[in-house]
Amino acid sequence: MKILILGADGYLGWSMTTSLADDGHELILVDNYSKRKYMEELKRSPLCEMPLIPKRIKYLADSSKKIKFHKMDCTNFKKTKNLIHKYRPDAIIHFAELPSAPFSMLNNQYGWETLQNNLQTTFNIIHCVKDINPDCHIIKLGTMGEYGTPNIDIEEGWLNIKHNKRKDKFLYPRQGSSLYHMSKIMDTDLIWFYVRNYGLNVTDLMQGPVYGIYYDQNNKNDSLAPTFTYDDIFGTVLNRFIVQAVAGIPLTVYGSGTQIRGYINVVDTIKCIKLTLDNKPAKGELAIYNQFTEQFSVNQLAALVVKSLKKIDIHATINKIKNPRIEKEKHYYNAKHSNIKKMGLSPLKLSADVIIDIAKYVRKHKKNINNKIIQPKVSW
Amino acid sequence: MKILILGADGYLGWSMTTSLADDGHELILVDNYSKRKYMEELKRSPLCEMPLIPKRIKYLADSSKKIKFHKMDCTNFKKTKNLIHKYRPDAIIHFAELPSAPFSMLNNQYGWETLQNNLQTTFNIIHCVKDINPDCHIIKLGTMGEYGTPNIDIEEGWLNIKHNKRKDKFLYPRQGSSLYHMSKIMDTDLIWFYVRNYGLNVTDLMQGPVYGIYYDQNNKNDSLAPTFTYDDIFGTVLNRFIVQAVAGIPLTVYGSGTQIRGYINVVDTIKCIKLTLDNKPAKGELAIYNQFTEQFSVNQLAALVVKSLKKIDIHATINKIKNPRIEKEKHYYNAKHSNIKKMGLSPLKLSADVIIDIAKYVRKHKKNINNKIIQPKVSW
Repeated sequence: MKILILGADGYLGWSMTTSLADDGHELILVDNYSKRKYMEELKRSPLCEMPLIPKRIKYLADSSKKIKFHKMDCTNFKKTKNLIHKYRPDAIIHFAELPSAPFSMLNNQYGWETLQNNLQTTFNIIHCVKDINPDCHIIKLGTMGEYGTPNIDIEEGWLNIKHNKRKDKFLYPRQGSSLYHMSKIMDTDLIWFYVRNYGLNVTDLMQGPVYGIYYDQNNKNDSLAPTFTYDDIFGTVLNRFIVQAVAGIPLTVYGSGTQIRGYINVVDTIKCIKLTLDNKPAKGELAIYNQFTEQFSVNQLAALVVKSLKKIDIHATINKIKNPRIEKEKHYYNAKHSNIKKMGLSPLKLSADVIIDIAKYVRKHKKNINNKIIQPKVSW
Repeated sequence: MKILILGADGYLGWSMTTSLADDGHELILVDNYSKRKYMEELKRSPLCEMPLIPKRIKYLADSSKKIKFHKMDCTNFKKTKNLIHKYRPDAIIHFAELPSAPFSMLNNQYGWETLQNNLQTTFNIIHCVKDINPDCHIIKLGTMGEYGTPNIDIEEGWLNIKHNKRKDKFLYPRQGSSLYHMSKIMDTDLIWFYVRNYGLNVTDLMQGPVYGIYYDQNNKNDSLAPTFTYDDIFGTVLNRFIVQAVAGIPLTVYGSGTQIRGYINVVDTIKCIKLTLDNKPAKGELAIYNQFTEQFSVNQLAALVVKSLKKIDIHATINKIKNPRIEKEKHYYNAKHSNIKKMGLSPLKLSADVIIDIAKYVRKHKKNINNKIIQPKVSW
């Protein structure tokens, strides 16, 4: 397949690229390196500074002649149009979004930039696909955070509603807890507008927080690793806990730690997206899958990290701190996720081995850990 | 009260200004004249070219010293911040949005500009109110078009949902039929995000298509009239029908004409907003009212115009044309609108007299009617 990967420099974008290169697909990578720029601006850095894409491509499976790269900003309509016109891809995997809730809540500028960047890239991509290449399958990364924490079961994207003896089917009502999450809700609404009116083929993957290093559990090759962040702004909870444990500082649980979410290993993220590539939805259908494999509370995650890492002689402690976020701490949470199983995913569940694997990678780069960028500094 | 009116040059913005000036409020008017600019760009013009705001202010009730004007673009964060900081208004009435579905569907540029302008003005206003003036009452114009045409009753903004034996209350699921309508849905989502997290006081008025000239049925003063459009892009259906009748050309019904919507006279729009000003919602409450007074199908409106105008010897005909829009023509439609009645509105219903009143105004300016800008030229 000819596949455009937008946001290929990111944690998921690079893992996806590596895996699809293994499979011999023709890949066109796009990134504007904006996350690197923002991290520098905010004095945050990843565990290892990764080379830029042209250099990283050389580490990939011997298919580099089939991999192209464009340094490009997808908020530019004309450039996005030219790109889609030039390649007419079979599929577009759209990771080209600002990915952080704390970033979006840091100040008005980053808040608006998150809304604008995410909505405008999505607008440009879907509008150009409609005009130029309407058979293309767009795979878009959403987030489980679009649903918030409703008091009813979370279905996969859609909800049948009966009201006053009549019924209809709607996008599941969503309510985000940061401007980042709001931007993803707006993306989904915009995509559904184009899909229903112009018969496009789109999959929107509502993903839970991701953890892990390797895109493939059978190929633990550090030179192919993605950019791994652990800081307060761009890091996600489980990866951050493991870095704190390795660094010998307490795991910071925000608030009571009773917040429940659905989590997924990056290995499974990649498998899910590949399954999605093989399951293009029908024209006019917006396929929505809840992309996570297990639910945990933050307390459960912290306890699991502490217990697992004892086996490799890391003795971590837990520190509950005032929650820097506005979010419900005690809440109902029951999210469905059977669609990815139906497509054929057999998940890699979170275990002591999985946690130890990540910790071993982190330990190799322990000298790079900057303790000062872990404690949360953005609150709302 | 000290009231900021954003978008004061528009059809509703000016009517609102005129009425609040009568009541002696301290008014700060803001407009960037972007609608004038876009109309010129698209070679559309209103029935009468109205003077710019500084000149129009002179026609208002003898309170002009209490009325200020800033030519300003509310997509500019810093200027919006300075404005709210300078005046610390009791209320902000937010009309500063691009108001047209066909405009938003004309091409990618206008589509994106509609999304961006509407979302960014709303973001700037609500973010600055949170930071500077959190007790201020924001009154935002939404649209009944946010709901689309669902197969269940349309409630006022909110829906209680029972699902798998549990229940929760959500924003009513919404589905727009143009990028303009999508922008208004996103506005509402964004507003609710700020209201629930920061305890702001906001009213979101889901308004149906407006018709009429005079802001007050007891003060039919042409020198105070708002900008009246009737073209294919900025005009709304009933006003356009009346212009077609006066011009002696057939009333163009799009498609079968069985599309049903809720309509409102501009007189009642103004009354509703004034009632809203007196009914500030509690902190953290987003009050949503469906602001229309009667439901009609397009066929009913056309027939009513034809029948009414016979009385003043205008013999109009009806021409059904291919629907230029993607929209359901046969659909269920039952929208609640009891909140505005509960606040005390006794509506001015659509009648032969109301239609004749509008037609008489149009007839005075008959020589200005440009037949070439009425037939729809934007389709999607």
